[in-house]
Amino acid sequence: MQMESENSIEISKFEWPNGFYSDAAHSGLKATGDDLGWLYSKVPASAAGVYTTNQFQAAPTTLTKQTINLDHCLQAMVMNAGNANSCNGDQGMTDAETMQQLAAEKLDINPKLVGVASTGVIGELLPMVKIENGISKLDLTKTDAVTKAVLTTDTHPKTITVKCLIDNQPVTLTGFCKGSGMIHPNMATMLGFVTTDAAIAGDQLQSLLSTTVDQTFNQITVDGDTSTNDMVIVMANGMAQNQPLTTNHPDYPTFVSAFKTVLTKLAQAIAGDGEGASKLVEVNVSGAANRNEAQQAAKEIVGSNLVKAMIFGEDANWGRIMQALGQTNVHLDVDGVSVSVNGIQLVKNSMGTGFNEDKIAESLKAKKVTIDVDLNVGDAFGTAWGCDLTYKYVQINAAYRS
Amino acid sequence: MQMESENSIEISKFEWPNGFYSDAAHSGLKATGDDLGWLYSKVPASAAGVYTTNQFQAAPTTLTKQTINLDHCLQAMVMNAGNANSCNGDQGMTDAETMQQLAAEKLDINPKLVGVASTGVIGELLPMVKIENGISKLDLTKTDAVTKAVLTTDTHPKTITVKCLIDNQPVTLTGFCKGSGMIHPNMATMLGFVTTDAAIAGDQLQSLLSTTVDQTFNQITVDGDTSTNDMVIVMANGMAQNQPLTTNHPDYPTFVSAFKTVLTKLAQAIAGDGEGASKLVEVNVSGAANRNEAQQAAKEIVGSNLVKAMIFGEDANWGRIMQALGQTNVHLDVDGVSVSVNGIQLVKNSMGTGFNEDKIAESLKAKKVTIDVDLNVGDAFGTAWGCDLTYKYVQINAAYRS
Repeated sequence: MQMESENSIEISKFEWPNGFYSDAAHSGLKATGDDLGWLYSKVPASAAGVYTTNQFQAAPTTLTKQTINLDHCLQAMVMNAGNANSCNGDQGMTDAETMQQLAAEKLDINPKLVGVASTGVIGELLPMVKIENGISKLDLTKTDAVTKAVLTTDTHPKTITVKCLIDNQPVTLTGFCKGSGMIHPNMATMLGFVTTDAAIAGDQLQSLLSTTVDQTFNQITVDGDTSTNDMVIVMANGMAQNQPLTTNHPDYPTFVSAFKTVLTKLAQAIAGDGEGASKLVEVNVSGAANRNEAQQAAKEIVGSNLVKAMIFGEDANWGRIMQALGQTNVHLDVDGVSVSVNGIQLVKNSMGTGFNEDKIAESLKAKKVTIDVDLNVGDAFGTAWGCDLTYKYVQINAAYRS
Repeated sequence: MQMESENSIEISKFEWPNGFYSDAAHSGLKATGDDLGWLYSKVPASAAGVYTTNQFQAAPTTLTKQTINLDHCLQAMVMNAGNANSCNGDQGMTDAETMQQLAAEKLDINPKLVGVASTGVIGELLPMVKIENGISKLDLTKTDAVTKAVLTTDTHPKTITVKCLIDNQPVTLTGFCKGSGMIHPNMATMLGFVTTDAAIAGDQLQSLLSTTVDQTFNQITVDGDTSTNDMVIVMANGMAQNQPLTTNHPDYPTFVSAFKTVLTKLAQAIAGDGEGASKLVEVNVSGAANRNEAQQAAKEIVGSNLVKAMIFGEDANWGRIMQALGQTNVHLDVDGVSVSVNGIQLVKNSMGTGFNEDKIAESLKAKKVTIDVDLNVGDAFGTAWGCDLTYKYVQINAAYRS
């Protein structure tokens, strides 16, 4: 039954779920292009969020968390790129609240049903005239313009639509996100939005989101840095008219599978679009003592600057994978670790296998590099995603403000 | 009295302490130049060490630790660059022991008085014919050739000589080290050797080394990665004929000060010679709840890729300093943090000060960048050192084996 449910999800081309609308506009926060947008549900939606763990939490992030925590209900999200509204003291919170208020007025809904998200430079006040002007231009459309308006150093928008049947009703889940730098641990590391017309209570949605984020967004790393602003927000408006999803609902596994697919694809898209990245890197760790350690080991390897630079250089210097693994505290068989890269075994019993250098060199030219590591101490498995470290990463980050 | 003692230390030009000799040779491990050398004391010396915390500890590191732990006594260290003798299984340990044996035979001393250190590529067997040939060429000289023979991607040797008076006897401390990549936490992160003619018992020396390393070598970071091979070894041969140093000795503070100076200068030299580095970065954190948190915060800031790339770009994007600080768990006043860069205050009460952009841009052109951060919650202070992240770092690490 569960297998059948899991097989019944389908990735389709972009569309908003029933009852969701959006729009975007150029407000002048960025020199060109849309830089402000919103997401709106015809009816109030169940809502859940996870938020940055950075001690300097930006005002919009704090405000959205407070708003959702009222009763896990949202009807709209308003968002901008080009200015993070972070480290701006009391004025920052006042401005975030004004942005919330302006969107609510234009939509004619209660401000307590509006979340706010901002991304961009830290420490500059939000230019409220531009924000007000931008919001005044927003309409309700079925376009994907908002998915582009939140981008910063991203090279392309990241969206996904997944469909499934719940109570034999078609249900749609559509997610989008931004983020290509400051991508690292403990969630919090980018902006992500998931909309669905499924019916599910807010607390159930929160629980599902928190669990799923740990295995998806929290397992990507670009540079080991977390931002002050980031969050993942889910809105479920119930317009598919299924019986509300709970863990006892027969189709709950289908929904979980669809939801996890949305978050995994978005997480992979962020890792592959890491600042300056030329390759997506996936690290699978098996044979771990437990899932937590498997995930930790995978993330340490994918996050190592030395491993990342080696992948950029297409050099099978496997000692760096061992070194990155060894600097964790995870349980491992010191004399029994195996490492394969793109299916070619480089390390067996913690020693080099005398592999074919030409073959691995050829394989490392691929756009995706998969590293499989067996710790040889248990049965647990974990995955993490990242990218290579390139000249372009340095270039992008040496002059971000300019 | 203590102040007077601390003032009586003097940095002088390179020379070995009484009774220490060294030499180096080209063995063929590297294509050109000296790549193997030793350090020898006329009499057995008190010895202490700190070693990598990486789970894959290289054979020479394990062997040296075992050797020193016998009775904290060494008479020689033999060392090579070009091959790390790491991840080589049982053969790796056999080869390290053979290298120890060969040096002992040539010096006509007990192998249990010889430490071994290796650095270079991981996972290739040590070519023992080359090692044997190299050791056969070594002599006892007063040159500094060994300080060059251990270098890998370093751009220059790193040495320091400090002199002081203990019991009115002149005492010399001379240290050297290598390391410019894989430089990060928990010691372990490079090769460092300190020689002195002071008389001090092995256990006292070990205690002093462990404490001092925590505030020096453990506070530098180049790329967040630790190596499988690294260690800091101290040898004190007593030939200055002072009364053995203990914490009760009236001149102990002088020796501590001299010893800390040696380790601090070597640590700074490594950070400033980080792979591809164009600038030395020093982060001083004050107003912390305790010393440990001050050091942790300083190291997080100096280790952030985003901060490092910003310094390379000479861009006063202070939000990245806040972001790096905020992702730690150290106690801080969220609305009361101050940040200055090269003496120019950029952040007050956790907000931008509206500083002069031209002035800070000019200041960031300097070869050394000092970041002062006040957490505003206590009196503790800590420092960390690192370098900027440059195109050259990526270049070096994209093709290390080639």
